[in-house]
Amino acid sequence: MELLAEHGYERLTVEGVAERAGVNKTTIYRWWPSKAALLGAALTCGAPLDLTAPDTGTLQGDLTELVRSLVRLLTLPPASDIAVAALGAAAGNPELAGHTRGFFADRLARELPVFERAAARGELSPDADPMLLMDLLAGAVWARAVFRGLPIEDDFPEHAVSTVLHGIARRR
Amino acid sequence: MELLAEHGYERLTVEGVAERAGVNKTTIYRWWPSKAALLGAALTCGAPLDLTAPDTGTLQGDLTELVRSLVRLLTLPPASDIAVAALGAAAGNPELAGHTRGFFADRLARELPVFERAAARGELSPDADPMLLMDLLAGAVWARAVFRGLPIEDDFPEHAVSTVLHGIARRR
Repeated sequence: MELLAEHGYERLTVEGVAERAGVNKTTIYRWWPSKAALLGAALTCGAPLDLTAPDTGTLQGDLTELVRSLVRLLTLPPASDIAVAALGAAAGNPELAGHTRGFFADRLARELPVFERAAARGELSPDADPMLLMDLLAGAVWARAVFRGLPIEDDFPEHAVSTVLHGIARRR
Repeated sequence: MELLAEHGYERLTVEGVAERAGVNKTTIYRWWPSKAALLGAALTCGAPLDLTAPDTGTLQGDLTELVRSLVRLLTLPPASDIAVAALGAAAGNPELAGHTRGFFADRLARELPVFERAAARGELSPDADPMLLMDLLAGAVWARAVFRGLPIEDDFPEHAVSTVLHGIARRR
């Protein structure tokens, strides 16, 4: 992940990883058949993009904490260099995309307890879809920070969460 | 944009564009100083990623149409090859990102009438933020189609729009 952050995905090589790690490249190939597979495993299991689901006692509090984590992940180096390089590269590379999908599936599995606790507390509409909520929230952070390249204001997490929880239609 | 879809951003060259267009590359450099600038202009002004804001008579209808357009843009070739390659490359390339920002600013300006008409009809909460709504909706399509690599179900646009309009908190 250090090499990815320094050089980008195109110039990342298994040879370079072996050299930085002080092992023979055959040792790496024994476990991961390609740099895409190696990076997919590093994203899912490595410390820089780790995620601990919050448990603040309310759905609003938990989702706001999750969005704050995503903002840090996509805006603060070194995590942001790693995440933006890996996810940007995955967009144009089907093999890498196959491996980053495992990363997203793993993170959704870790986020699910937030929604299960909210349902148990009666905070969540019965037809609410956790994957859709996470795609709206995580997608919004990506769109604002990466696509628009705008700073994320301090109240962005609260506004985004409040929108998906309560909506912005005027109450009649 | 054809060359981008065929070869990806790394292998796109101004020379290749000049050859495909049947002009001298100095003609291109006279107007655009780099391939990033050229691509930024092509994304903003070109037909493949064009956007016409819908006017269905309701905010729900207009936003659902906008999300359907985004789904087509990110899942149907050739537009999806162009959009995914350009936006993926922009994530790791500050110069290109500077030019794709113009693309997003242009699209938001074209989407604003949807929100102005909704406000005039009294459908929109006064503190609703059009940029946040578009980032939630467009980001969700990107997250689902590109990051998760999942098919977009037919009811995805309606569910996503319904969530940002009405929220998923259980009504007390």
